[in-house]
Amino acid sequence: MKESIKEPMEEGFTSADYHFMARALQLAAKGLYTTDPNPRVGCVIVRYDQHTEGQVVGEGFHLRTGEPHAEIHALNAAGIKAEGATAYVTLEPCSHTGRTGPCAVALADARVARVVVAMVDPNPRVSGSGIQRLRDEGIQVEVGLLEQDARGLNPGFISRMQRKRPFVRLKMAMSLDGRTAMGSGESQWITGPEARSQVQRLRARSSAILSGVESVIMDDSRLTVRAEQLALDNAEAVSQRQPLRVILDSRLRLPLAAACLREPGRTLIITTEHHSDEKRQKLEAAGALIKVMPADQEGRIDLANMLSWLAEHEQINELLVETGATLAGALLEANAVDELQLFVAPTLLGGEARPLFALPGMTRMADQKRLTIKEIRAVGSDWRIIAEPRTD
Amino acid sequence: MKESIKEPMEEGFTSADYHFMARALQLAAKGLYTTDPNPRVGCVIVRYDQHTEGQVVGEGFHLRTGEPHAEIHALNAAGIKAEGATAYVTLEPCSHTGRTGPCAVALADARVARVVVAMVDPNPRVSGSGIQRLRDEGIQVEVGLLEQDARGLNPGFISRMQRKRPFVRLKMAMSLDGRTAMGSGESQWITGPEARSQVQRLRARSSAILSGVESVIMDDSRLTVRAEQLALDNAEAVSQRQPLRVILDSRLRLPLAAACLREPGRTLIITTEHHSDEKRQKLEAAGALIKVMPADQEGRIDLANMLSWLAEHEQINELLVETGATLAGALLEANAVDELQLFVAPTLLGGEARPLFALPGMTRMADQKRLTIKEIRAVGSDWRIIAEPRTD
Repeated sequence: MKESIKEPMEEGFTSADYHFMARALQLAAKGLYTTDPNPRVGCVIVRYDQHTEGQVVGEGFHLRTGEPHAEIHALNAAGIKAEGATAYVTLEPCSHTGRTGPCAVALADARVARVVVAMVDPNPRVSGSGIQRLRDEGIQVEVGLLEQDARGLNPGFISRMQRKRPFVRLKMAMSLDGRTAMGSGESQWITGPEARSQVQRLRARSSAILSGVESVIMDDSRLTVRAEQLALDNAEAVSQRQPLRVILDSRLRLPLAAACLREPGRTLIITTEHHSDEKRQKLEAAGALIKVMPADQEGRIDLANMLSWLAEHEQINELLVETGATLAGALLEANAVDELQLFVAPTLLGGEARPLFALPGMTRMADQKRLTIKEIRAVGSDWRIIAEPRTD
Repeated sequence: MKESIKEPMEEGFTSADYHFMARALQLAAKGLYTTDPNPRVGCVIVRYDQHTEGQVVGEGFHLRTGEPHAEIHALNAAGIKAEGATAYVTLEPCSHTGRTGPCAVALADARVARVVVAMVDPNPRVSGSGIQRLRDEGIQVEVGLLEQDARGLNPGFISRMQRKRPFVRLKMAMSLDGRTAMGSGESQWITGPEARSQVQRLRARSSAILSGVESVIMDDSRLTVRAEQLALDNAEAVSQRQPLRVILDSRLRLPLAAACLREPGRTLIITTEHHSDEKRQKLEAAGALIKVMPADQEGRIDLANMLSWLAEHEQINELLVETGATLAGALLEANAVDELQLFVAPTLLGGEARPLFALPGMTRMADQKRLTIKEIRAVGSDWRIIAEPRTD
């Protein structure tokens, strides 16, 4: 199936195909804040009878893990009208018997005639097997329609499946002169309520939020999704799932009184062997989970190892990093940042204020970290810049 | 005439009036790089005969000082067709006999019936006298059409006339994390050729370019307009006028070998009494102009005084500041910056790199310098942000 990723057969798709796949993508996005750790998937079932441009007979999307997949919802809605119809699915239907039975079998049982798939399953072990199963049943399958859009829905799931690590999104709030706080650490609030609401939605779509212990201590960060700040219709439902809070704390310095330990959801402290057992026991008694990881020569947690572990053991798809200049700089240096979201306030804090990134090894222009700007957009009276580190 | 600034009589203008004044503004902009120290002014003469929507019979704009004003060019083009016509002028016609004779008299002599003026003369001593003179001749005069656009053409001239100081535009090139150079000072080039071409055009429209001696030494800046980088059709003609180079150098540290001393145009070094007469004589022999100004307790040149002096003695309308963090910060602290133009490259230079602004007195969030963002635009692979310091 690798070929179909590289060379999508877009030539063969009709404008109706585009229309209905776009609808399936819209449906998939309804699961943005709830499907974790599953991918966001949408499905539309369409009948092409004579004299029609196609009629939707069933729609569905995956809402949350343990509940039916998008295809099952859509097939249930279509009923017997699924026979001979075309199913548009944003992700290759599964062929394994999970909690909900293989969707490829369900589509075949419903006797759909054609399945259009936006992207193959990113899991290399099963990629293509759902499509093969459909073809074995005599169903026409076409792959690659609006594939980039489909991939954009699930950067974290794809990263975890293909790279065995989360998609790392680094969010920072800064002044126009690149400062995150005054020299004293004072920082509340650089950006306005609209920007903070967007950050809440970034948290809500993430599997986990990562911070360094220094930042957590400085701000007594709660690192939670707050329904009242989400500005979403289903804010209450969304905030039921709290992302895992991950705190890098090589010496277990997190105070027992830290606000995040009293919030709903789990707090995982990643530390090294350089910690006191007594503090560990107290933190565990206060509700924290503790994971010991290897340290490098300087006693710092190995970031690549930490990311792999989070993907493997905690099924972390999208990891939102909200932290200070040191950890942010270290992640950049380790080429571990996939996306930067900078919320820029129209203000200047001056040269004594705290920098965006500590990049101590960078002394020459040749060392600079080049970025590709994907988007600049006004957010209230602030601006959001989305950028990606360049890999060339 | 003050009332007409506050309450432009826009209700009375027709769509044709807007159309022709917009054309006059376009014409005025043709003088953007050449009229200094005069304002940019455009004029359109239109006949409204029966059955027509108005016919242009003459157009003109002011090209350079010593040459005719816009109205004279337009009247010459219109000839006898000016009689009974409407003249659209972006700035109140002059009533004084300068090098070219009063335009108000020329309009009356040509027997135009009506004059539409975008804005009154910003010089408080003569403001309204040209309009009065026209009215005394029985000509219908209307004021305030597209006044904001007209003001936008001449921020420097208006500032010099009304505030007795230049319009100060601070240009900086920075990385996305607000850094202008590596710690070593290495900075060439942060931004790309399109951004540098825009900076060349900012220089070309300015009466003078201001820099601190530290920056001039560091970069051996030439501070000139280079025809080949302007990307203008009339680049050769524009680069004939070199803006005054103003270097703040309280102790006359500028090396005699500085590149800017060998460039066409004048270099003015503003210094304090704390300098050696020997160095002064050598710099003057190398072609520099030297002006001694009072120093404050710390031996620094008083910025407000310097700006007033430049307006009064050098007729500086738009002053482009291209300098480092210290002088840029001092200008901001002195509330002397009218406009910030930040050219932002999609790159990160890290916390060891040079800051955008030194603002040493700023230690609390309450001290922050808030800005209003006027525009964010892509310039090649960089971004240009235009902002104004907030005065509230």
